[in-house]
Amino acid sequence: MKIAVLGTGMVGRALSSRLAGLGHDVVIGTRDVAATLSIAEPDRMGNMPFAQWQADHQDVRLLSFADAGAHGEVVVNATGGGVSLAALEAAGADNLAGKVLIDVANTLDFSQGRPPTLSIVNTDSLGERIQRAFPDARVVKTLNTMNASIMVNPSRVPGDHDVFVAGEDADAKETVKGLLREFGWKDDNIVDLGGIRSARGTEMYLPLWLSLWGVIGTSDYNIKVVRG
Amino acid sequence: MKIAVLGTGMVGRALSSRLAGLGHDVVIGTRDVAATLSIAEPDRMGNMPFAQWQADHQDVRLLSFADAGAHGEVVVNATGGGVSLAALEAAGADNLAGKVLIDVANTLDFSQGRPPTLSIVNTDSLGERIQRAFPDARVVKTLNTMNASIMVNPSRVPGDHDVFVAGEDADAKETVKGLLREFGWKDDNIVDLGGIRSARGTEMYLPLWLSLWGVIGTSDYNIKVVRG
Repeated sequence: MKIAVLGTGMVGRALSSRLAGLGHDVVIGTRDVAATLSIAEPDRMGNMPFAQWQADHQDVRLLSFADAGAHGEVVVNATGGGVSLAALEAAGADNLAGKVLIDVANTLDFSQGRPPTLSIVNTDSLGERIQRAFPDARVVKTLNTMNASIMVNPSRVPGDHDVFVAGEDADAKETVKGLLREFGWKDDNIVDLGGIRSARGTEMYLPLWLSLWGVIGTSDYNIKVVRG
Repeated sequence: MKIAVLGTGMVGRALSSRLAGLGHDVVIGTRDVAATLSIAEPDRMGNMPFAQWQADHQDVRLLSFADAGAHGEVVVNATGGGVSLAALEAAGADNLAGKVLIDVANTLDFSQGRPPTLSIVNTDSLGERIQRAFPDARVVKTLNTMNASIMVNPSRVPGDHDVFVAGEDADAKETVKGLLREFGWKDDNIVDLGGIRSARGTEMYLPLWLSLWGVIGTSDYNIKVVRG
């Protein structure tokens, strides 16, 4: 499948390299290709410069947001939640029309220090806002409740644990569930929460997720819904 | 232990009857004793009138918030999150000073319809607000992430699943963990998130919890943190 991953950070890299390894035709999109390639220092999260990463991942081509949007049959928003709408605008509403648009972003806002707050919360969510801004795209919110390594390799955490899916379009959710199964997610661990409004729940889970990180000392964990 | 449970709804009833059954000296507090006893119809959640409930639970005495606050060595806030500060004010700051104050409430706001939003969120939490309003109380946020039946009887959900604890006072948290163990919570399933600010995470989990209720069709579920 032709897949465009928007965002060259840790999440975009994990998703694009895993999808390419699974045999998909994957490009990774950025705002300014030359600027992304000219970065010489690790980012503030300690990730290596993109050009260095790409030397080991030549199966993932770097394109502008617009060229990436044109390439993808499925488009993945892996940009920071605060810039996602601008990135998708740059990818092009025409390019997104009719396509499955997977949103894995969170609107973490570090401007007031740590722990971060959310810039969209409670009466709205990023997933809903993206769906409203791009009504012809078929938005599916998923994978935003865990670290990037677990997203693409759930066996990193032993046993059963869950991933959530939310969106309006049933066919789009089936496409996404298929990709999740390719990553290694078991059917029983893919929890379909219903419409895109349920993105509020998965986005608002982030503060608990961050508290757990502080307690556990690593982000290698996930939650499982245990039924009575 | 002398325990005052504030709030005569489903959560207050479950906690007070369970604590009384464990041998504690339990009172349940309400704003207006006569008004609470005069209710003749089930509440909007379908719970029987309080007087009818109390006929089967005579080991739990009904008192005003102030008298309940004076009685309890431990005070439990099981009132609706929107009225909790007023209820605690009525219980009396002097009565709460130095005591363990267990907050199990959520600020669900149904005024804009369903699903509800939260009236305190993101940059604050009810747990923090209670601690600020009653600085001499030793506030511990816990149990607000599940239904009342599971709170007091975790074996209702099979296997391992978790309860969260947040608060500034280590001794108060130990007292609360002891009560949780009496309810049946295993040590390994009591996750101490740190200070009261972590109440944000457990309160903001509610929208996900509500979405899961819609999917599962019952509120008999809980989450487990699975570590890598």
